[in-house]
Amino acid sequence: MDKTSPMGREEVELLIPKFQLIRILNQDQAGRRLTLLGKLQAAEAIMVFERTALPTSEALVSPLPSTVQYLRNLGHNDIYAWYLASSPPSAETPDLKINLIWPATQRHVQKYERQGVKVVTETKDVYAQDVRPWVEKQRGEGRLDWVYNILDGRTEVEDVILRDEGGEKPDEGFLLLPDLNWDRKTLPSLHLLALVFRRDIWSLRDLQKAHVPWLTAMRRKIIDAVTTLYPSVGADELKLYMHYQPTYYHFHVHVVHAALDPGATQATGKAFGLENTLAWLAGLPDGAGLADVSLTYTLGDRSPLWTDVFGPLAGRADGRGAGA
Amino acid sequence: MDKTSPMGREEVELLIPKFQLIRILNQDQAGRRLTLLGKLQAAEAIMVFERTALPTSEALVSPLPSTVQYLRNLGHNDIYAWYLASSPPSAETPDLKINLIWPATQRHVQKYERQGVKVVTETKDVYAQDVRPWVEKQRGEGRLDWVYNILDGRTEVEDVILRDEGGEKPDEGFLLLPDLNWDRKTLPSLHLLALVFRRDIWSLRDLQKAHVPWLTAMRRKIIDAVTTLYPSVGADELKLYMHYQPTYYHFHVHVVHAALDPGATQATGKAFGLENTLAWLAGLPDGAGLADVSLTYTLGDRSPLWTDVFGPLAGRADGRGAGA
Repeated sequence: MDKTSPMGREEVELLIPKFQLIRILNQDQAGRRLTLLGKLQAAEAIMVFERTALPTSEALVSPLPSTVQYLRNLGHNDIYAWYLASSPPSAETPDLKINLIWPATQRHVQKYERQGVKVVTETKDVYAQDVRPWVEKQRGEGRLDWVYNILDGRTEVEDVILRDEGGEKPDEGFLLLPDLNWDRKTLPSLHLLALVFRRDIWSLRDLQKAHVPWLTAMRRKIIDAVTTLYPSVGADELKLYMHYQPTYYHFHVHVVHAALDPGATQATGKAFGLENTLAWLAGLPDGAGLADVSLTYTLGDRSPLWTDVFGPLAGRADGRGAGA
Repeated sequence: MDKTSPMGREEVELLIPKFQLIRILNQDQAGRRLTLLGKLQAAEAIMVFERTALPTSEALVSPLPSTVQYLRNLGHNDIYAWYLASSPPSAETPDLKINLIWPATQRHVQKYERQGVKVVTETKDVYAQDVRPWVEKQRGEGRLDWVYNILDGRTEVEDVILRDEGGEKPDEGFLLLPDLNWDRKTLPSLHLLALVFRRDIWSLRDLQKAHVPWLTAMRRKIIDAVTTLYPSVGADELKLYMHYQPTYYHFHVHVVHAALDPGATQATGKAFGLENTLAWLAGLPDGAGLADVSLTYTLGDRSPLWTDVFGPLAGRADGRGAGA
């Protein structure tokens, strides 16, 4: 928005009707999110429409069946009937969340435009020769400073749920703290992160068979800490998983409530269950690790790893690294 | 509905406003689906409200920014601003899908009521002693007849996309056909099933290291068949996975477009990627298989496997089989 003369609420609201559609950039979340590119005054703007959650208070839910408009029956069969309808417009039960980005640059458009998903198989060799050197670059340039600040107790100290120094084995220490996306109170959507202290495990690719006892004990400590802090959460209601590829290359485990709606972030091809990964490791020959196996996963076709590594590999004659 | 005098569309529509809320049974899909129990005339009824997808035709999208009602700005910062609003009610752009089940029995209420999710670890021993005998019962009583009818060519013959008899190895044959949930035309939501001919593999638990070459070749054939039939789908845009536990105990592989919005059905703890499962098998000692490892997965706490097997095990003193 205009920084020289900050806008008031009303002015910001008057922007919306002025938006003129250029084209649809994306539709996702089962069609319930729509991202538009348009013109707003002289500049380009991105507008995101998203269906809101339905109300859950009895006062708002109770009148709904008798106040819907344009009710249309589509069919019925035995005890089942299905319909379409419009909820009555009101300030209490909005059906749309709108985000506006204005003025939007080409970089914003790229970020919000539909991204294709590629399935890639990263063999042991592709990892060693192509991906690992790329990851090494990602780890540089101070990008992990925020992790080290947490581990060293310089930031977010008050958020830490569990700080396990590892006792006689400092290599086995870890921290447990809330994920940024969790509101820190709604238990069915609980989302925590366990960050290990050691800095030599970049991702699950660096896990060795020899790490199984450590990680099994760490899992136990995480579950004990969470169920002690939140007694209404059962030990058998926690899902632990890692991402591959992860967003940042310092080994961490996601801890979520099993009731949390699983979306793309928990999908096979992205999320690897901790327990099944440990079972996989346990079955490998002594001395082996996940750097020795083929891993298949999904990548956005505008992600840097696709554009830097897998895209060029897929174009090569030998197709090394291509999902095909 | 009343079977003696079938209702017309108008009568079925008049039912909705008569619904009187008793209580909310469930809220899921990130809050965008709400399941209600209520009274309708003398009987109980279940009503499901679900947010619809947003429109995508230019004629319907274009006017949206200038016709929203109760627009309210929640805040803005630099180039970002966020709002809530109500879309104008209309027959063309309904925001609600409604399902009515009436009269509803106790069994319907149970089915639609929120189900807890449990995380269980099925060790090698729990599988052999408790789960396998339970699965054996599930396979009986003609429950797989529909699968055998397809495999033997008695039903759905015209739907089969690929029938591979396995050549000299009839044990390696399989069928490829559309999943029931796919509309058979929208490629980004493509969903197929590969059913193997052999009947001795009940689930991925029966996969052996020795099966890796067969399943690797089967994967190749599936991808070739799909990309030949649908040339706009790339070989690196297909996700293959199995469920554990599966819905039915005859080995089958799900084949979906990587762009398909992944929900609970693709979540870690339920879906096991085919390629990663093959990599896991390949790393096991010769002669071993997935019946030898621990598998961790999620189960609804009203699923028969939980109530019959894991629930009772979790209650036992030794806690065998409990996720904890």
